[in-house]
Amino acid sequence: MLFIMLSQNKIEDAKARAVLFYDKAGLVLTSKEKQFIEIADFGLSDLEKMGLEVLVYVNTERVCAKELVMFPWQTCPEHIHPSKNKIAGKEETFRCRWGKVYLYVSGDPNSERQLDGLDDHRKYLQVVHEVELNPGEQYTIFPDTLHWFRAGDGGAVVSEFSTRSTDEEDIFTDPRINRFTIIGK
Amino acid sequence: MLFIMLSQNKIEDAKARAVLFYDKAGLVLTSKEKQFIEIADFGLSDLEKMGLEVLVYVNTERVCAKELVMFPWQTCPEHIHPSKNKIAGKEETFRCRWGKVYLYVSGDPNSERQLDGLDDHRKYLQVVHEVELNPGEQYTIFPDTLHWFRAGDGGAVVSEFSTRSTDEEDIFTDPRINRFTIIGK
Repeated sequence: MLFIMLSQNKIEDAKARAVLFYDKAGLVLTSKEKQFIEIADFGLSDLEKMGLEVLVYVNTERVCAKELVMFPWQTCPEHIHPSKNKIAGKEETFRCRWGKVYLYVSGDPNSERQLDGLDDHRKYLQVVHEVELNPGEQYTIFPDTLHWFRAGDGGAVVSEFSTRSTDEEDIFTDPRINRFTIIGK
Repeated sequence: MLFIMLSQNKIEDAKARAVLFYDKAGLVLTSKEKQFIEIADFGLSDLEKMGLEVLVYVNTERVCAKELVMFPWQTCPEHIHPSKNKIAGKEETFRCRWGKVYLYVSGDPNSERQLDGLDDHRKYLQVVHEVELNPGEQYTIFPDTLHWFRAGDGGAVVSEFSTRSTDEEDIFTDPRINRFTIIGK
């Protein structure tokens, strides 16, 4: 597994920038929540292209709700939430609150856009059927379903309603990816 | 069980009014969703005082997300989501998005406000410990936990993140209450 470090400065910059997106979407966060925004670069150290800014509202044994910020064309790489030992994997609904998000699932390829600017991640993609989500639109991903998503050119704010979030169980199709960001100095 | 009818006109008026609250909160709904806002008067035919306006975003076997509107001082009456046959009852997190909501749970009474204007419902209340929720604040109600809530004087918009919603299994402490609104002409 490759561990690439994201500097603390870059993390703080990304958090501050994410707060501006939540503001634009009209979503109110407490001061404490703003400090707890998580910055995920999937170990690729290329946050602008491949990453997510995440505020976890709640994550109990049964329910999770998050508010995601995606910078312009930022991508959450292809992955699956696997069922395991007869326990169903994570189920999640994405609801676009602000901006535009392109979600990719299995099905016929239906857009030329999805592979632009993905660099090396492109060759690992297995699902390229595009679902465009504008504010107020949503889509549910059931367990064991490959998917990935990226923001449009203005970025996006997306609510995620799901079962318990267990990031460590996600399986990514790009073998370079590590879900956990390692923080440097 | 008492069935009191809420007229179709009153329902349409309440839906239109709820849309204004979602707008004030900056939450975007599709045109179709605006038509599917549910108006619940709990069979009391006194919607302004005792009721909820509800948009269900998603309700699968495992996850539910709703956006609630409450008119000024409108109250959702005291109830519980019971566990049954070893299956855990509904768990729900309320997150205030706009306005102010007062949530009541078990504990020492800590406010003079909670019993004002509740009329006959007042005598049935069993929990009167107040938790005030302003935008960005939230609270999780686990199964088998009595609770009720009401909006402040400007009304409120509240996101609810939960396990599957099964309204028909809710148990209300006020014996006059029927969860299902009967629509008259």
